[in-house]
Amino acid sequence: MPSPANVPQKLSTVEDYKEFLDKYDTFMLDCDGKKLVFVTNNSTLSRANYVKKFEKLGIQASEKDIFSSAFATAVYLRNILNFPSDKRVFVIGESGIVDELKDVGIESTGAADDSGAVMTHADFGSIEQDPTIGAVVCGFDININYIKLAKAFKYLSNPDQKVHFILTNNDTTFPAPNGIYPGTGSLVQPLITALGREPLVMGKPNKPMLDCFFSNYHTDPARTCMVGDRLDTDIDFGAQGNIATLMVLTGVSTEQEAMDPEQPIKPTYIIPSFGEFAKVEKA
Amino acid sequence: MPSPANVPQKLSTVEDYKEFLDKYDTFMLDCDGKKLVFVTNNSTLSRANYVKKFEKLGIQASEKDIFSSAFATAVYLRNILNFPSDKRVFVIGESGIVDELKDVGIESTGAADDSGAVMTHADFGSIEQDPTIGAVVCGFDININYIKLAKAFKYLSNPDQKVHFILTNNDTTFPAPNGIYPGTGSLVQPLITALGREPLVMGKPNKPMLDCFFSNYHTDPARTCMVGDRLDTDIDFGAQGNIATLMVLTGVSTEQEAMDPEQPIKPTYIIPSFGEFAKVEKA
Repeated sequence: MPSPANVPQKLSTVEDYKEFLDKYDTFMLDCDGKKLVFVTNNSTLSRANYVKKFEKLGIQASEKDIFSSAFATAVYLRNILNFPSDKRVFVIGESGIVDELKDVGIESTGAADDSGAVMTHADFGSIEQDPTIGAVVCGFDININYIKLAKAFKYLSNPDQKVHFILTNNDTTFPAPNGIYPGTGSLVQPLITALGREPLVMGKPNKPMLDCFFSNYHTDPARTCMVGDRLDTDIDFGAQGNIATLMVLTGVSTEQEAMDPEQPIKPTYIIPSFGEFAKVEKA
Repeated sequence: MPSPANVPQKLSTVEDYKEFLDKYDTFMLDCDGKKLVFVTNNSTLSRANYVKKFEKLGIQASEKDIFSSAFATAVYLRNILNFPSDKRVFVIGESGIVDELKDVGIESTGAADDSGAVMTHADFGSIEQDPTIGAVVCGFDININYIKLAKAFKYLSNPDQKVHFILTNNDTTFPAPNGIYPGTGSLVQPLITALGREPLVMGKPNKPMLDCFFSNYHTDPARTCMVGDRLDTDIDFGAQGNIATLMVLTGVSTEQEAMDPEQPIKPTYIIPSFGEFAKVEKA
């Protein structure tokens, strides 16, 4: 039974579950959920490295089951911007971005090459324009330094050529095992402030990540559902892309928040947990 | 002859010059001008190193003739905040700040100690609270890195203690010999964004720099005049501190800009050049 417009439909009976599962072929899940395609803003690991990490945790996954902001950035440059084959990408970021770019045939510099250097004021003269740079990609970089910022600033402020400015994700904090620290959305701020220029943001809840998803998986948006536990990232991500969203009540956001008339971000469906769908098999 | 309120008085006759010079004992000048006290936002050099730099350029100056944002920060911590003797300052910045803090008896860490390190994700656990840190001071740091940002974030986000957050100056770009690069006001942005907390800004045109000036020189504000060529920094600096301002027309801003009724920042006086005052001697 469909809900009135702008009110999430609560799934609670086996009939509800069946009807829902018949409607969608593809489920995009946040990494915290049960998987079909894992969708993560973390750009530090490549899909290949995520597979290895999951194996260690006893989770079976293949590269095609993982969709990260680093991979989305590579797909975006390749499929959507048709990045020229004679250009390179300057990366403020870690191996996840470098590996994914390489995987789609795009050469990069920066990243590990410029890590760990001690710069002096006498070295400013060594920072020069590089006409081979066609884009600057910023992701989380635990070895960010002034040389990387100065080079990125130089490339992006060159008025002679149009250099793309792409941010993998805009999360202002990074969750480490012992607490939060400044995240990608914070590390990019020196460039935004000094340049007076905003980057294109790939990651959830922004639409480029979704555009890349469909350019990569070729699934039908009408039969794709974003599943997640957070209204402000996962559900907003699906909502901004006009695809169906399923909110699971096993995480951060609550049913009360979703049902609040003042809440601007509404899931299409709500379910107590993703595990509920197992009842369909048994019925 | 005094001008009507809010219209700069143009000094043009020897009588005007005499009257003006009789009125003020202390002149604060931007480093570009003829000197009495040089006032600079650049925090990378200590006053001792400025004296050496000036000597190489053939300019005679002593430490007491130089007032920098690094020195102002040290004076502020010592004289205005009464910084506790059992606390240290964590510095994102260069030797200018470290040396000036040492000169007023304040111990510091960070700065060169944390430069050039390559960090891995396994190192997050090594970043711990340090109850000896009483303030985080940020200035221009050509060796800024993630470790410094992560430590500063950790100290400043500790809810148990009040850690001061001080920015030497808010200039978003840094002028290098081969062009501009991201400046102090840009490098601090990751902390501001991740913390959601604004620092106290020392440098021109902010009032703390002026408060420090008077706490250090003990001159009479009513007999002190800020001299400079820029409305948006030098003249605004004096205006915000309610001291007289003299705009010289040998630099960036023009007489037309100063006289524009729409211009919110007005100098008290305008003179074609500081050299004009030599006529008083000859008269």
